[in-house]
Amino acid sequence: MPMDASVKPHDRLARFLADDMDAVNVLIRKRMASEHAPRIPEVTAHLVEAGGKRLRPMLTLAAAHLCGYQGDHHVKLAATVEFIHTATLLHDDVVDESGQRRGRPTANLLWDNKSSVLVGDYLFSRSFQLMVETGSLRVLDILANASATIAEGEVLQLTAAQDLATTEAIYLQVVRGKTAALFSAATEVGGVIAGADDATTQALFDYGDALGISFQIVDDLLDYWGSDATGKNIGDDFRERKLTLPVIKAVARADATERDFWKRTIEKGNQQDGDLETALELLKKHNAMEDTRTEALKWADQAKAVLSVLPDHELRQMLSDIADYVVARLR
Amino acid sequence: MPMDASVKPHDRLARFLADDMDAVNVLIRKRMASEHAPRIPEVTAHLVEAGGKRLRPMLTLAAAHLCGYQGDHHVKLAATVEFIHTATLLHDDVVDESGQRRGRPTANLLWDNKSSVLVGDYLFSRSFQLMVETGSLRVLDILANASATIAEGEVLQLTAAQDLATTEAIYLQVVRGKTAALFSAATEVGGVIAGADDATTQALFDYGDALGISFQIVDDLLDYWGSDATGKNIGDDFRERKLTLPVIKAVARADATERDFWKRTIEKGNQQDGDLETALELLKKHNAMEDTRTEALKWADQAKAVLSVLPDHELRQMLSDIADYVVARLR
Repeated sequence: MPMDASVKPHDRLARFLADDMDAVNVLIRKRMASEHAPRIPEVTAHLVEAGGKRLRPMLTLAAAHLCGYQGDHHVKLAATVEFIHTATLLHDDVVDESGQRRGRPTANLLWDNKSSVLVGDYLFSRSFQLMVETGSLRVLDILANASATIAEGEVLQLTAAQDLATTEAIYLQVVRGKTAALFSAATEVGGVIAGADDATTQALFDYGDALGISFQIVDDLLDYWGSDATGKNIGDDFRERKLTLPVIKAVARADATERDFWKRTIEKGNQQDGDLETALELLKKHNAMEDTRTEALKWADQAKAVLSVLPDHELRQMLSDIADYVVARLR
Repeated sequence: MPMDASVKPHDRLARFLADDMDAVNVLIRKRMASEHAPRIPEVTAHLVEAGGKRLRPMLTLAAAHLCGYQGDHHVKLAATVEFIHTATLLHDDVVDESGQRRGRPTANLLWDNKSSVLVGDYLFSRSFQLMVETGSLRVLDILANASATIAEGEVLQLTAAQDLATTEAIYLQVVRGKTAALFSAATEVGGVIAGADDATTQALFDYGDALGISFQIVDDLLDYWGSDATGKNIGDDFRERKLTLPVIKAVARADATERDFWKRTIEKGNQQDGDLETALELLKKHNAMEDTRTEALKWADQAKAVLSVLPDHELRQMLSDIADYVVARLR
C-alpha cells in the first residue's frame, strides 16, 4: 500500500488493519450481547455506535503483526482491550456525572447510573472471559495488573483532583494509571501473544506508556487550548474543578492573589462569571499551556525513540506517525 | 474435634477452618491495600471490619480440604472469592442507593458513590490478580464466567424488579446470577484446585448453586418474615419496590383489586401509610410466605442431596449442616 501523506496516521493504520478490525468489530458485537438481560445490548450498542477511534485495539493488532504473529488470538486481545476501555468509560461517566461523550448523551443520562455501573461490570467480566480464551497466563497477568493500575489511578484522581497540593509527580501517576496503563498493556500483549523476546515486549510496553501519557496530557491541554475534535467545550475541566497539568503549572508559579483565585475556584468550587477568562489569562501569563505542550511533545518523542528496538516493518513507521498525530491535535 | 450441637454450623465450620481463614484474612488485608491511593484502604477497611460471615471463602476452603488438597492456592482462591463479593457489595450499594449494610453506614454514604464504584473496580482487579497467581486456566475460566453471570443477573434484576410481569422463572434467573453464581464458583474452584474428578467438581458446583438459591430466597423472605440477624427492617424491599418471591407468589394469586394495589405500590411506587400492613396481609392470605419458605427448604434439601457424591469427610456433614442453617434463619 503506497504511503499517502494526505491520509491521517490514524486512518492509515486503520486501513492497514482493516481485515483484523472487521473481525474485532464482529467479536465485540457478539460478546457484548446478553441472552437474558436486554438492557445490556441496548447500552453497549449505544457506546459502540458512538464510534470511538478504536485506537487501543489497533495498537494491539499492530504490535502483534509487527512481531510477525500468525494466529488469531490478537483479535480476542484487541476486543478485550476495547471492552476494558468501554467499561472504564461507563464508570467514568458515573464518577464525573457527565452528560455528554463524543457529542452524544452518555449512558448514565439515557438510562441511569445503575445501568452504567452494572453494564460496565458486565463488559469487564466479558473482557476477562475473552482473555482467558487465549490461554496465555502471561497475557492474563499483564491485563490483571493493568486493570488494578487503572482503578488505582482513578481513585487517586478522585482524591487529588481538587487538592492544590497535587504535584506534577502525582499528576503523572494518575495519568499513568487511568490512561497509559491500558495503552501499554495493549501494545505489550500484542508482542507477548506473538512470542516476542523480552527486549521487544519491553519496548512495546514503553511505547504504549509514553504514548498514553502524551495522549492524556494533550487531552487535558485541549480543554483550555480548544479544539472541535474532542466534543468538549473549553473550560469543562475548570468547571468540574479538575486539577490538570496546565493548572498545576500555573498554581506552582502563582503569587498570593492568584493562589487565592485557584483556591476559591478549584478547591472550594465557588465559581463566578468571568472566572474561566481569568484562569485562561493566568495560564497564558505563566506560559503554562506552552510548557504543557512541550511536556506532551517530550513524551511523544520518547514513544518514537523506543520504536528503534522493534523489527523494521511498515507498521513501525505508522506507530511513529501515531505519536506525532497525538500531539498534532493541538492546532 | 468433638461435635458440639450447641455450636452453630457456621461457627463449627469457622473453627475447623480457623488456620486457613487466618491466612485468608492476612492475604485480604495485604491485597486490599494500595501504595498510591489512600482512599482505597480506608474504604476496604470499613468493609472488612464490618465483619461479614465470610461464608463464601469458607466454602472454597472446605471444598478444597474435602477433596484432599495439600497446597496453598486455596487460600488465594478464598480471598479472590471474598474480593469479588466485596466488590459487588460496593456496587450494589450504589445501585440500591443503600444507606446501611450489616447495621453500619455504607461506603457510598460515608465517602461517595464515586469511591464505591472505583474501589469496587479496584477490588475486582485485585481478585483477578490473585486468581492469575494460581496459574490454573480452568479456575480462571470458572471465575470469569461467574463474574459475567453475576453482572448479568444484576442487570436483569434492574429491569425486572418493578415489573409485575416478572415470573418465578425470571426471579430464579436473577437469584442464580446475583447470588448463586458466586457460591457455586466458590465451591467448584475448591475442587478444581485440588484436582478432583468431574463428578466431584460437578457435585460441588451443584451444592453451591442450590445453597446460593436457598440463601437468597431466605434473604428475600426475611424482609417480610422479620429477623434481628439481617440488620434489615421489615418491609425494606417493599419500600424499595423490589419484586421478590413472596410478592411474585401473591401477585400471581391476586384478584383485580389486589392487583391494583401491587401495581400502585410496586410498579408506580406510589406508597402510603398502611400499605406495608396491607402487603403483609395479602402475603398471609395467599400463603405466599409459607410457600416461599417451602421453596427455600426444597433448595436446601437439594444442596444436601448432592453431597452424597462427595468423599466421606467430617466437612461433608458440616456443609450439610450449613444448608440447614441457611433456612433455620427463618424463626
